[in-house]
Amino acid sequence: MMRAVVWDGQLRFRPDYPIPQVPPGWAGIRVKTAGICRTDLELIKGYLGYKGVLGHEFVGMVESCEDARWIGKRAAGEINVACGQCSFCQAGLGRHCPNRTTLGIDRLDGCMADCCILPINNLVEIPDNIPDDRAVFIEPLSAACEILEQLPLNGSERVVILGDGRLGILCAWVLSTAVSDVTLVGHHPEKLVLAAWNGIKMSHDGSHCCGADVVVEATGSASGLAAAMALCRPRGTIVLKSTVAVSAALNLSPVVIHELTVLGSRCGQFRQGLALMAKYSGMPLESLITRRFPIEAAAEAFYLAAQNSGIKILLDL
Amino acid sequence: MMRAVVWDGQLRFRPDYPIPQVPPGWAGIRVKTAGICRTDLELIKGYLGYKGVLGHEFVGMVESCEDARWIGKRAAGEINVACGQCSFCQAGLGRHCPNRTTLGIDRLDGCMADCCILPINNLVEIPDNIPDDRAVFIEPLSAACEILEQLPLNGSERVVILGDGRLGILCAWVLSTAVSDVTLVGHHPEKLVLAAWNGIKMSHDGSHCCGADVVVEATGSASGLAAAMALCRPRGTIVLKSTVAVSAALNLSPVVIHELTVLGSRCGQFRQGLALMAKYSGMPLESLITRRFPIEAAAEAFYLAAQNSGIKILLDL
Repeated sequence: MMRAVVWDGQLRFRPDYPIPQVPPGWAGIRVKTAGICRTDLELIKGYLGYKGVLGHEFVGMVESCEDARWIGKRAAGEINVACGQCSFCQAGLGRHCPNRTTLGIDRLDGCMADCCILPINNLVEIPDNIPDDRAVFIEPLSAACEILEQLPLNGSERVVILGDGRLGILCAWVLSTAVSDVTLVGHHPEKLVLAAWNGIKMSHDGSHCCGADVVVEATGSASGLAAAMALCRPRGTIVLKSTVAVSAALNLSPVVIHELTVLGSRCGQFRQGLALMAKYSGMPLESLITRRFPIEAAAEAFYLAAQNSGIKILLDL
Repeated sequence: MMRAVVWDGQLRFRPDYPIPQVPPGWAGIRVKTAGICRTDLELIKGYLGYKGVLGHEFVGMVESCEDARWIGKRAAGEINVACGQCSFCQAGLGRHCPNRTTLGIDRLDGCMADCCILPINNLVEIPDNIPDDRAVFIEPLSAACEILEQLPLNGSERVVILGDGRLGILCAWVLSTAVSDVTLVGHHPEKLVLAAWNGIKMSHDGSHCCGADVVVEATGSASGLAAAMALCRPRGTIVLKSTVAVSAALNLSPVVIHELTVLGSRCGQFRQGLALMAKYSGMPLESLITRRFPIEAAAEAFYLAAQNSGIKILLDL
């Protein structure tokens, strides 16, 4: 038996959840710390129909694995478990495999537990010089890096990020490594203070940001796209980063009239996130950890996360 | 005085509208025939706040112009009147000039009248071998060509067009010149029959079109985008071609989850439309003219157009 945070229509801490079996080709990981993400908050609204152990952001120690070289290694893991056979997998786009399961999101128990399992191919080893409290950001940092993979930038663009939550701040940090003119728009002065890094400009309302070449929508709010359309120049690009699973009343005619490109962007590749994390050792990832709780206090941690009162809340195992 | 179809909160045929003055650098054009477009139908709902002479699709004869070479030439004209000075104009994107007026759409009287005016630089001469009833399609055909300008295609893509109205059919025809696998989805058997050309496949519900690389939304309906999201493969592209000026309840999470690109597409360059029209002389543009009326019967023509009972309805001067 192990400790686990389970969603089954209610959020429950369970001390007696079954330890997962490790199939051939997979690894069992003893989780050290796990992060609460906005997607977790969406899941416990029941929108996506998931039931099981929550959590997909973690760092842990590989405990059981048929490849002995992994045993005892500190690792994180790509969250999408792809089939390896379909055309997307063959094209290196396993994160779009139609047959995939996803850690803590879709038919695969997640990492808010003493142990989780993932295919060996999903693991990335964390170098010794990256502490746990940085490594636990690899999943959202890689998701921010996905923008650079999808959108060619020459460095001269004016970029605006809407949303001063964790994802917005990480997007601003990542984009500031490629573009010099980056503005982060958010309503929370205490979050904008934490976001200060690498010459990023801060704005409370975006009023000086009209005509931006690229606007990243990371508010997590259904109204974010309308704000992005108002700030983006004709023929500019809006990157949709928030998964908002509710319908909202939207008038998309500005997309047509101004010939905007709206680019959906989701998970990234962990190797890219890890490389960026290693290269920019001054990127103040740890400062985003505003609270941490033992896993037994998961209910309180989720409650605070849902209040939007912190940036990153961790659960320690 | 001249005949004109005017929108001033009501649609009116007026026999006594003032003939427009021709400013320096502009040309006065005697209109021969004008097309009714979906945008005109939106305008007479009052959504866009326009008042004045309607119409932006026409072919006519240049009647007055300081450049004598144009006098007596048969011509059509680009509908956006750009300032020529701003950064968009300098980049050859006058159709996104923030200072522009637009023929029959925004602060510039349109072409459903005996005469209209446009800058000389907006004119394109119609070659003798293109009859009026083909030339009058230059504006919507150029708008369809805009997709080819915005979206690189290698010819192997699976393309689906949603909407068997005039714009959907023209998009299908244009894309079929660049891509071999094109399916047009529409609910009107009589329109799909007219759309048959160049190996385009027809579908009543799109059920066989899942996993398309490119989906063009040309339904003119607020529900079209949801249908497009359902048909588009992960990492595929949805081209938004309809200007639907109303808010609709939309759940855009598939755009993020499947990392779709949504590309707004509006007006095109007349030279491209004219070149395509000349190259594909078998493209059955004239067959899309389902009715024609003298301008005095504009009210009946607009009524029928709003009933969605035809494809292209013309007003003859």
